[in-house]
Amino acid sequence: MPPVQDLDLILDQVRSLLAHGQVEEAAATISALRPAEAADVVAALHPADGADVLEELEPQERADVVEELDPEIGAEVLIELDEDERTDVANRLDVESLSEFLDEMAPDDAADVLGDLSASKAKAALDGMDQPDEVRGLLEHDEESAGGLMIPHVVAFRQSMTVHQTIEFLRRAKPDEETSYYLFVTDDADRLIGVVSLRQLIVADPLTPLHEIMSEDVFAAEVGTDQEECARLLARYDLLALPIVDDDRKLVGVVTADDLIDVIEEEATEDIYHLANLDADEDVYDNIFRSSRRRLTWLFINLPTAVLAGWVVSRFTGTIQLVPILAAFVPIIAGQGGNAGIQTLTLIVRSLALGEITLRDSWRTLSREMAIGLVNGLIFGLCVGLLGMFWQGSPMIGVVVGGAMMLNLVGAAISGTVVPLGLRFLKVDPALASGVIVTTVTDVTGNFVLLALATLLLLTNT
Amino acid sequence: MPPVQDLDLILDQVRSLLAHGQVEEAAATISALRPAEAADVVAALHPADGADVLEELEPQERADVVEELDPEIGAEVLIELDEDERTDVANRLDVESLSEFLDEMAPDDAADVLGDLSASKAKAALDGMDQPDEVRGLLEHDEESAGGLMIPHVVAFRQSMTVHQTIEFLRRAKPDEETSYYLFVTDDADRLIGVVSLRQLIVADPLTPLHEIMSEDVFAAEVGTDQEECARLLARYDLLALPIVDDDRKLVGVVTADDLIDVIEEEATEDIYHLANLDADEDVYDNIFRSSRRRLTWLFINLPTAVLAGWVVSRFTGTIQLVPILAAFVPIIAGQGGNAGIQTLTLIVRSLALGEITLRDSWRTLSREMAIGLVNGLIFGLCVGLLGMFWQGSPMIGVVVGGAMMLNLVGAAISGTVVPLGLRFLKVDPALASGVIVTTVTDVTGNFVLLALATLLLLTNT
Repeated sequence: MPPVQDLDLILDQVRSLLAHGQVEEAAATISALRPAEAADVVAALHPADGADVLEELEPQERADVVEELDPEIGAEVLIELDEDERTDVANRLDVESLSEFLDEMAPDDAADVLGDLSASKAKAALDGMDQPDEVRGLLEHDEESAGGLMIPHVVAFRQSMTVHQTIEFLRRAKPDEETSYYLFVTDDADRLIGVVSLRQLIVADPLTPLHEIMSEDVFAAEVGTDQEECARLLARYDLLALPIVDDDRKLVGVVTADDLIDVIEEEATEDIYHLANLDADEDVYDNIFRSSRRRLTWLFINLPTAVLAGWVVSRFTGTIQLVPILAAFVPIIAGQGGNAGIQTLTLIVRSLALGEITLRDSWRTLSREMAIGLVNGLIFGLCVGLLGMFWQGSPMIGVVVGGAMMLNLVGAAISGTVVPLGLRFLKVDPALASGVIVTTVTDVTGNFVLLALATLLLLTNT
Repeated sequence: MPPVQDLDLILDQVRSLLAHGQVEEAAATISALRPAEAADVVAALHPADGADVLEELEPQERADVVEELDPEIGAEVLIELDEDERTDVANRLDVESLSEFLDEMAPDDAADVLGDLSASKAKAALDGMDQPDEVRGLLEHDEESAGGLMIPHVVAFRQSMTVHQTIEFLRRAKPDEETSYYLFVTDDADRLIGVVSLRQLIVADPLTPLHEIMSEDVFAAEVGTDQEECARLLARYDLLALPIVDDDRKLVGVVTADDLIDVIEEEATEDIYHLANLDADEDVYDNIFRSSRRRLTWLFINLPTAVLAGWVVSRFTGTIQLVPILAAFVPIIAGQGGNAGIQTLTLIVRSLALGEITLRDSWRTLSREMAIGLVNGLIFGLCVGLLGMFWQGSPMIGVVVGGAMMLNLVGAAISGTVVPLGLRFLKVDPALASGVIVTTVTDVTGNFVLLALATLLLLTNT
């Protein structure tokens, strides 16, 4: 174990390793230190970098280092840890330290941490906090709503205050960095009526009242608004913060851009993973058995659907025995259908997520996708039909495989549209499990149409 | 056509339609007006809403309305239009109006519009501008780099300036809203050395020099940095703007959070669409033939790979004729393999996009995925083996289908990892076409292993 005077040297070394993306090596360097020394090194890094290094350590070692951090820095590092690791650390910390850390966090962050703990652990940590009230209030809101994401109790400014009074107030109150790029202006009943940016405040004449310089075009969300909807508002109207109001349009909090950027990334990751039948919190650094278990669930859902598609084939073994080349067309018809279905499905899921379509557009979207499916079905039906005809020298095989391809591509368009819109209608995530359903439909339809057509046209003719 | 005095009524009606998501109906209402009146209504909406309505109009009608807008408002609406529609409008506007609009835009936005025009049209529009220099400078940078995204020539503040001098300067210069949430501080050689937020400025003592209140932890990107990397920095370090520096660390511009939020959404959409074999600019409102053509390209790439999988089956028609139930296992083995391969692929693609893994982690990632593939392969090999055994009453069929399943899931893990990492190594988008490659590998491997094993074990034993 190196003597303490080498810590500066070690810090330089860790910084340089991190600059080259060698997080594992940086973690190994820190792992060789005593927890208190390791904490000194971590404290000197940006919290996001410190968290990255900590994520590479063993769970108990990680908690020991965090325990040694100043509460102020520990709070920042804790927030930057991945959810799983953060919860693990919070569970290993003794309740007193945990409460100290929570007191140093923004209330919305503290609520996030507490939301992942067991009820008894969360209660104990809350009871140990100096200022638990705001956090308690936030915990009443859905974690994925504006209310669960907001920084509560932001300062509102009365419309009659002058620019000078406002600046003096800011000088005295020194509000949090995070909440103060916009100043929100309220009327006498505390209702949100406008917004003033710090820039407007600085360039305005000191004696002007706020209502003369404020912009009345102020976008706000309600406490219960879903976080995805908040992110859409922010992105659409190029905002840096979104004020949150209650039923009476009274200002109750503000959601900041940095939190909504995280929401945008998380929701995109969730859609991507759900479309691929992965758990939303699958992580490339999870241990093998946790990952394996997560994926098994999905593969087990997929298995019976694949067996169903296989079972359809098994009903036609007589036909296959007479015309075995049909078995070669099974993956072709089903594969193209699955591909086209996933194209449609993905477009619909992403367009729903970005707010480009809503359920109101269902009919328009369905007819558009069916038309595309028909055009592509005719083209590929012709291609595969010609392939079947010339490969096997039988026009009838051409008709069978071409017809099956065409029908399957239209079916793919219909299921690719109806499944995500139906899930949204049922208020389920449109990406969730929809890939399995759509490919099941295309596999089953494809196999059935191919083999039933073949039985009808080929066997009666031979 | 309604008389002009009804415009307020129409505006209320349009606002209420938009509030209920009825964009088409709002567009129809506007479409009934003369272009000049329609422009008055559009001008009264938020630019993002105005653009939504305009997107529903016929191309020439849309250009006619935009032409009637004040240049200042027209510029904002133009920027909010989808890229295809924006380019179409710009092409239909006469060059003089276009130049006027461009003069009103932030230089980075103007460069975006010009970048999508033909060289001759862009040159004519640039020549007609009052201040083309900044835009010309930006056009020299890659559109997807920090240089192409930044607002150039932001004001830098010398470290020796006092808070009072800085505020006075801001009062006089009235810098753009967009660029002024952070003030960037430079040394005597114009090199970026710190950052001061407007909040710090307001609460500080007026006589303090900036270098005493500035934060020296300032994250910056270089002009050539890829926009995805810039977005990662912003999201990771919770910034609202990212300063852009040249080789000598001289401040040359700033990229703002709103532009990087768009980058985050665009890049996520691109990954999602590429994973599903869709064009990155596929749009749910494109016309049917454009969409059909875009998807056909991808389906045509998929077809030969599906035919390849089918061809493998066709080499074993003899085996299938003797044991036709094998045809029923073709979709089961291939389907599970494809599903598992896409799980791995998607995890790798998204982890690369979020910067959670890099090429340095290739070996670690591959061994992890192979281990998961082996565990899942053993489990599903056993399941399907038992299914085959009891369904057909033949232990040998169980061994054949179970073994094929196991080998295919390991193959899926390998191809799901190697394909995206290989594409990244070749500096190609890891999401692009990787789904087709991975499912081809799993289809071909699955079919071949199944039927070859069957030929080996079943035919020699019967």
